[in-house]
Amino acid sequence: MQILLITNDDGIHSSGLMALKQAVEGLGRIIVIAPDRDNSAVSHSLTMDRPLKVTEIHHDTYMVNGTPTDCVALGIKKILNSKPALLLSGINAGANLGDDISYSGTVSAAIEGTMYSIPSMAISATGDPPYDFHGAGKAARMIAEKILENGLPDNTLVNMNVPPRHKQNRIKITRQGRRLWKDSIHETRDPRGWTHYWIGGGTPIHDSNRDTDVHAVREDFISITPLQLDLTNHTGVDFLKKHWDLKSVLD
Amino acid sequence: MQILLITNDDGIHSSGLMALKQAVEGLGRIIVIAPDRDNSAVSHSLTMDRPLKVTEIHHDTYMVNGTPTDCVALGIKKILNSKPALLLSGINAGANLGDDISYSGTVSAAIEGTMYSIPSMAISATGDPPYDFHGAGKAARMIAEKILENGLPDNTLVNMNVPPRHKQNRIKITRQGRRLWKDSIHETRDPRGWTHYWIGGGTPIHDSNRDTDVHAVREDFISITPLQLDLTNHTGVDFLKKHWDLKSVLD
Amino acid sequence: MQILLITNDDGIHSSGLMALKQAVEGLGRIIVIAPDRDNSAVSHSLTMDRPLKVTEIHHDTYMVNGTPTDCVALGIKKILNSKPALLLSGINAGANLGDDISYSGTVSAAIEGTMYSIPSMAISATGDPPYDFHGAGKAARMIAEKILENGLPDNTLVNMNVPPRHKQNRIKITRQGRRLWKDSIHETRDPRGWTHYWIGGGTPIHDSNRDTDVHAVREDFISITPLQLDLTNHTGVDFLKKHWDLKSVLD
Amino acid sequence: MQILLITNDDGIHSSGLMALKQAVEGLGRIIVIAPDRDNSAVSHSLTMDRPLKVTEIHHDTYMVNGTPTDCVALGIKKILNSKPALLLSGINAGANLGDDISYSGTVSAAIEGTMYSIPSMAISATGDPPYDFHGAGKAARMIAEKILENGLPDNTLVNMNVPPRHKQNRIKITRQGRRLWKDSIHETRDPRGWTHYWIGGGTPIHDSNRDTDVHAVREDFISITPLQLDLTNHTGVDFLKKHWDLKSVLD
Repeated sequence: MQILLITNDDGIHSSGLMALKQAVEGLGRIIVIAPDRDNSAVSHSLTMDRPLKVTEIHHDTYMVNGTPTDCVALGIKKILNSKPALLLSGINAGANLGDDISYSGTVSAAIEGTMYSIPSMAISATGDPPYDFHGAGKAARMIAEKILENGLPDNTLVNMNVPPRHKQNRIKITRQGRRLWKDSIHETRDPRGWTHYWIGGGTPIHDSNRDTDVHAVREDFISITPLQLDLTNHTGVDFLKKHWDLKSVLD
Repeated sequence: MQILLITNDDGIHSSGLMALKQAVEGLGRIIVIAPDRDNSAVSHSLTMDRPLKVTEIHHDTYMVNGTPTDCVALGIKKILNSKPALLLSGINAGANLGDDISYSGTVSAAIEGTMYSIPSMAISATGDPPYDFHGAGKAARMIAEKILENGLPDNTLVNMNVPPRHKQNRIKITRQGRRLWKDSIHETRDPRGWTHYWIGGGTPIHDSNRDTDVHAVREDFISITPLQLDLTNHTGVDFLKKHWDLKSVLD
Repeated sequence: MQILLITNDDGIHSSGLMALKQAVEGLGRIIVIAPDRDNSAVSHSLTMDRPLKVTEIHHDTYMVNGTPTDCVALGIKKILNSKPALLLSGINAGANLGDDISYSGTVSAAIEGTMYSIPSMAISATGDPPYDFHGAGKAARMIAEKILENGLPDNTLVNMNVPPRHKQNRIKITRQGRRLWKDSIHETRDPRGWTHYWIGGGTPIHDSNRDTDVHAVREDFISITPLQLDLTNHTGVDFLKKHWDLKSVLD
Repeated sequence: MQILLITNDDGIHSSGLMALKQAVEGLGRIIVIAPDRDNSAVSHSLTMDRPLKVTEIHHDTYMVNGTPTDCVALGIKKILNSKPALLLSGINAGANLGDDISYSGTVSAAIEGTMYSIPSMAISATGDPPYDFHGAGKAARMIAEKILENGLPDNTLVNMNVPPRHKQNRIKITRQGRRLWKDSIHETRDPRGWTHYWIGGGTPIHDSNRDTDVHAVREDFISITPLQLDLTNHTGVDFLKKHWDLKSVLD
């Protein structure tokens, strides 16, 4: 039977993970390998300064004292005997859109899976708590089936964001937009009176381009963005070759 | 006077940071904002579960108990009064090439700077310890001057890797290659006899394509790769629109 | 109704905590305030470099992202409206005997309670996994009732260790013995080949004095040791006054 | 030549450690083994969930990525070839008096040394920054010489607190007093508006008994308190035997 590997960044006890597991029941043997606690905003962190412990807490459910990326790497190289047919990461409690994708542990787990040539998808429930994990789970299953049937382009993962009020399964294939945050660093004081800075909160400045993930979700569409591993700016390669007179530098 | 912001992921006490600071002396007012300790492989992590403390340990030298990305965000939004003309991240002790770029705290700091529209470059000294930070610093200064003169394409950063034996400043503009690791998870036992897994080490499987960063460095070239913020696989957008029959899903 | 405050160092999800809660049911209103994860060997650590979050996960059950000592301090000063009649810490998975008491988060929570003049007891199930939490819970209830009836001497806590095969509730009031560890530091290597040291394991060198906690437990007795807050060696005060010629130092 | 082992809890880069090292120069071969960063309020914590790395950063100067207690245990069991004649922990930036002794990493390092039968002393500079480490160092040397000459009672360590304005080396042998803190938990909010609690600050409620460490320091005396490993309340043993009718429990 084909294996579906599930992980997340909110930790193994989170309800988004449970919802995802239930939603894809029947599509294969489901194996969960997830962090022992919240790993939000850890991005693509790998734990290299200490060893990691894998604990099988239930049948086919493994807890790791590390990051989502650690979970995927250990899962593929040490825990699973065969390559999963699909990696699902989520369901994240909150959106992963625009620039924020880069910080996301949820998306990074899917990047890690893609590096090992496993079709991978990150799923996030947008909006505010309580999140509609049930609705997001249903949508995730639909797309999971699509991926299992049709595959994904090489070195490409899917980033899916499901808004709470998506009517009639309206779906848009989008590109990653921009989303910067205003007033997202708060000042606080410790008991000795020293200033500290707490990152978070603030107001998002949304990208208004109609083909972006950010815009789709604001219009209550499910957003599906294909992301790639290659970070190269290929037109930039030509630009630098042409405009930087490296010859003169070299002499 | 224009400001050069310097950060890194090896921590504020690392010799690669010192070497970079010395190498660019005279190009502007140099302000260092760096983590208080080693943050290797933290990727683009943001610290959101606790507040951060900024300590000015010398004039224009700030230490932050957080990640490289925290340093850049705090620097731009809270510490600096005006926008830096250039952000330099490094000099990293070891290469940041191919797939490994994605885990790198050094490169992620330059990504963060680029999000704030600051021309940004990550610099790594490849090879083994002791690293040639002096040689890498000289090369970094050369390219820093190029960027200050000519700018960079929008939403684009530079990832620079300097090998120890680069002869006559041989430079190549490259694309990000692939670099996977074989046998990169070691098993060890804790004193109670439980197995733990330690990520790291192993043998790299190099990309042999001649236009890649991985290949350039193996041939003793300095590699300069323009990277972009946009992770979208744009041809993938069309692929999904065409091949996934989302209409049928929706009805 | 009188309040019983329960905490531990193995974390809020541990089965020893559950067992303790069940064992004392009916003795009062039971309020649990415990760390979100394993805090073994944290001793009397206070978290002062970051703020702490208190989450009410069920009615009268609070999770804190800190140490056992943090839990007690926050509980008494911020969460509870009135002073508990009793603080119970445990049931620890493993013994807290002899010199090891000093490292114990379980015992330290009871020390913290005693500082606030709350009658406090630490309970540990000795032996190896699976621990007999049920038996230890029964014994704990018995002694909890004694403390609620008779109180404890000022500035004094109770450290209770319950062996798995204690027959007929055999109990001994003991003093803290010595227990050092042989070969308790193991060497391991990280993936780069560097040596690291892992503390733990080893062979205990037991105190053979018959009135000690260490000895009682080896003989399958339940051990109850009254501990005090005062660390002063009072005979040492006289010794130093007499033998150190401080006058000569001062002139 | 006899070995003096120096450690602390403020970290290997702290100026209190440097001052202590300079102050005892000439008394033996000085070996420093100290934590890589601030470990204030870690108490007697042992690191058991991950291995520890020892780095020799200069001749006879070792940095450990662990607690003060880890440093002493590794030093004695793995780094040093022979038993030190004296262990000195400090100079701590701030007092370690009364109840606060129990939280102190500085004092705990001296407790650990005493467990290995090494004469051990913790030294703290009281008052506010900038601390008078020079004055405290001079006093520490004086007492270190006393200990090297006369030894210490078995299982007994010295806790020394040096106030900034101690005139004419006025010294008192004291007992551990009480020192509780009022208003020592501050509330702060994270960027999402959740309340967090920050332990620290507040106003100490001093013990006014004339023979205590707390009182001595308030009167500008150097305080020297002999502390012991044994936590047993020996009169409590008799109390419990007499007043708890354990016979009835047992039947």
